Amino acid sequence: MAKVKKQPRPKAETPKGFRDYFGAEVTERKAMLDKIAEVYELYGFDALETSAVETVEALGKFLPDVDRPNEGVFAWQEDEKDWLALRYDLTAPLARVAAQYRNDLPAPYRRYAMGPVWRNEKPGPGRFRQFYQCDADTVGAPSVAADAEICAMLSDVLEALGIARGDYIVRINNRKVLNGVLEVAGLSGDENEAARGIVLRAIDKLDRLGPDGVRALLGEGRKDESGDFTKGAGMAAEKAEIVMGFMEALRPTGAETCARLAELVEGSQIGAEGVAELQQIADLLAAQGYGPDRIVIDPSVVRGLGYYTGPVYEAELTFDVQNEKGQTVQFGSVAGGGRYDDLVKRFTGQQVPATGVSIGVDRLLAALRSKGQTIAAQQGPIIVTVMDKARMADYQTMVAELRQAGLRAEVYLGNPKNFGNQLKYADKRKSPIAVIQGSEEADRGVIQLKDLILGAKLAETASAEEWKDNPQQIEVPRTDLVSEVRKMLART
Amino acid sequence: MAKVKKQPRPKAETPKGFRDYFGAEVTERKAMLDKIAEVYELYGFDALETSAVETVEALGKFLPDVDRPNEGVFAWQEDEKDWLALRYDLTAPLARVAAQYRNDLPAPYRRYAMGPVWRNEKPGPGRFRQFYQCDADTVGAPSVAADAEICAMLSDVLEALGIARGDYIVRINNRKVLNGVLEVAGLSGDENEAARGIVLRAIDKLDRLGPDGVRALLGEGRKDESGDFTKGAGMAAEKAEIVMGFMEALRPTGAETCARLAELVEGSQIGAEGVAELQQIADLLAAQGYGPDRIVIDPSVVRGLGYYTGPVYEAELTFDVQNEKGQTVQFGSVAGGGRYDDLVKRFTGQQVPATGVSIGVDRLLAALRSKGQTIAAQQGPIIVTVMDKARMADYQTMVAELRQAGLRAEVYLGNPKNFGNQLKYADKRKSPIAVIQGSEEADRGVIQLKDLILGAKLAETASAEEWKDNPQQIEVPRTDLVSEVRKMLART
Repeated sequence: MAKVKKQPRPKAETPKGFRDYFGAEVTERKAMLDKIAEVYELYGFDALETSAVETVEALGKFLPDVDRPNEGVFAWQEDEKDWLALRYDLTAPLARVAAQYRNDLPAPYRRYAMGPVWRNEKPGPGRFRQFYQCDADTVGAPSVAADAEICAMLSDVLEALGIARGDYIVRINNRKVLNGVLEVAGLSGDENEAARGIVLRAIDKLDRLGPDGVRALLGEGRKDESGDFTKGAGMAAEKAEIVMGFMEALRPTGAETCARLAELVEGSQIGAEGVAELQQIADLLAAQGYGPDRIVIDPSVVRGLGYYTGPVYEAELTFDVQNEKGQTVQFGSVAGGGRYDDLVKRFTGQQVPATGVSIGVDRLLAALRSKGQTIAAQQGPIIVTVMDKARMADYQTMVAELRQAGLRAEVYLGNPKNFGNQLKYADKRKSPIAVIQGSEEADRGVIQLKDLILGAKLAETASAEEWKDNPQQIEVPRTDLVSEVRKMLART
Repeated sequence: MAKVKKQPRPKAETPKGFRDYFGAEVTERKAMLDKIAEVYELYGFDALETSAVETVEALGKFLPDVDRPNEGVFAWQEDEKDWLALRYDLTAPLARVAAQYRNDLPAPYRRYAMGPVWRNEKPGPGRFRQFYQCDADTVGAPSVAADAEICAMLSDVLEALGIARGDYIVRINNRKVLNGVLEVAGLSGDENEAARGIVLRAIDKLDRLGPDGVRALLGEGRKDESGDFTKGAGMAAEKAEIVMGFMEALRPTGAETCARLAELVEGSQIGAEGVAELQQIADLLAAQGYGPDRIVIDPSVVRGLGYYTGPVYEAELTFDVQNEKGQTVQFGSVAGGGRYDDLVKRFTGQQVPATGVSIGVDRLLAALRSKGQTIAAQQGPIIVTVMDKARMADYQTMVAELRQAGLRAEVYLGNPKNFGNQLKYADKRKSPIAVIQGSEEADRGVIQLKDLILGAKLAETASAEEWKDNPQQIEVPRTDLVSEVRKMLART
């Protein structure tokens, strides 16, 4: 290593777009991911943990030029040889693994993966350049039973996290039905590739532009508020209605929705295949007891239609929350996925069917928090205060007893001179109880237990008279430390 | 993003020095880290998760030149501005956090952190460029009670992981005692800085060179087997014996060891201080019931003496294992740490006392595996085989029943044509039971349960006669699926 030069003091800052997670922010996410992993395991999925670093080649990004190797990923060159990069999702590493170990892995291969991914993008409010993903994919299963299973699993995951039935819905659609619709609408064939692209992008904007905006884009085009004109697909009105009909084909039951879709794709083989797949998924789910209160066939799911090759699905939370502007809105999508068949092909030339879901960890965690459903928020530790520095061994003994009883506890290890600082510390740690023993109490074989939770309540509401009685602090025999602490914890 | 160019097929490989972790490799490590976190939490430590990426500046590495910014770390330059890098340990990010949030964090700040770190080093056998660390540190606690506490916690961690008392030992030493020894040996003062450096490096080599090798390095120097000569510290023999005496000062009890150390540092104030600290640590631990069967004052702990400023400690596993050459050896060190006072100073100029431990995750996991103490190795899923593709809904119903009963289960989702492949798949998944139902069985309302664990045993030991009886496969009513599967799992 080169000799360290004298430098000005470094700034104590995270790089732009990165952040730190403290205490409950870590443990709540962990508890959520643990619950999800439990359900994934129950469904036979196996854990996979790949490293954060992949070759740029394996990630499927290519080098446009040496100076700017990878818009979108964090990349660097090793010894003037390989370019390495941080993974930007968990699917690209899965593709590499599925190709690299194709002779050893069970087929089908069900794997789940959880961990951070990195995006070299402009950070914005709430948008970070490192965030968690949580995926489950089945590689090598051609049957749509694999898609149905992942939808069932997604439903189970949400309920395992405490989201009540009725507060979420899993929606399924199928890219093949869209392909059939495009065929019927006269947009098959190479010569219509550009028009199909416009249609796909228009469909993807349904949420934002509404049906009329999409209709305009399917036809001649659309002028937005700024006056900019986006050229449309140039479809005749009655053909455009077939596409619109696709997005609006949701009916009260899956069977009726499939019947309506069958009408729309009449005459298209790929379309008929897509409808049959949706019907099969609906049947499989019904057999397992997943009714339309949990999972529905819904052709208005358009997210990701362009990317996937078969069934697509997403999970939406349907309860109301307040957005930043104080408006009541539905929480919205927390997971999405679908079937894609080119996973391994890039590496091996061989087409391998795959289907999988990615859960938006941060959004889902925010949803759980807004419902008060976060798990395992750790209580602060019981603080054994230090009244007499020379008696540290006594305090350590107390804390050892508490820990042996499974109670989270610690001795105050800062400078003990100012007792107020010790209580301020306890407050900052959200400590439920402070244990106090000066030499006078030690001589009498007693300790003081201060109920900090009750104390905080009293500080807000109690009269001077009540406060003087000091009901939040009790004196108990030293020998009863553990049992009296337990009693006090139970009353709060 | 730049237009993607046609490229030859990428290689499906991890970058050199990186690896993938599958199934139990992931879940066993996770279970171990969960247990450790539980103990850390019990001691009042709070989780902290920083991002993988830090500015090179904050990491405390400097730029010798632009082409080779960081020997030892993975680094890259952002937009011709900041250099960013992957963290190489969990201490440097803690230092940044302790400085950045110094006005908001509780003081003392007890934090634990677990996660991967990255080293841009030549990979070797068993040496990877990404690996886990698992640290606990107390920042802002000047008292050695903080060091004693971490040693007690380390002992609790090992026992929580199933390592029996007697199979491990936590050893404590103190850098201040060494400083006292050096002073008494006439090596204080600026003019002896070089000699002190040689002594420190010699002490660090005790394990490898033995006492005589170290003695030679303390004196004139040492010629190694290849004939290379390493210059020594040039100490007179009787002065060198003071240093040797330090390393050999271990006595049957902590009190006797401290008494011996007090003799060695007689006349040195810093040395006396160090001995008093060790005595205080021993007293605090004794008060909490941590006797020398768990934690000992041991001056032969030299690892890290150069780096730390006060107490140093390490945990060693003392049971025998076979090494790669088939020799019986002690497992050795699995954790180490100590007190260091310049943590935050680089950022703020302010000295902040800190002490902490880092557990060698991979080594500890290997130790648990060698003792058969790994936790929660997940059993393979029960496989519901597909005899009749048209009856997929029935099979999915079976698997849903099993999952609802909390049993890990899945339907075979590959091509069902070849039944042998389904059983091979079950074997690869380490499945305990295969569920089989053809249309004939369906008509009779029964299923076959194949005990794959018993089957594997029989395949090894059974005679042709026994095999023919086929005791590993039973027929049960379809309605008894869950209870019969439970019975079969219980018998294996």
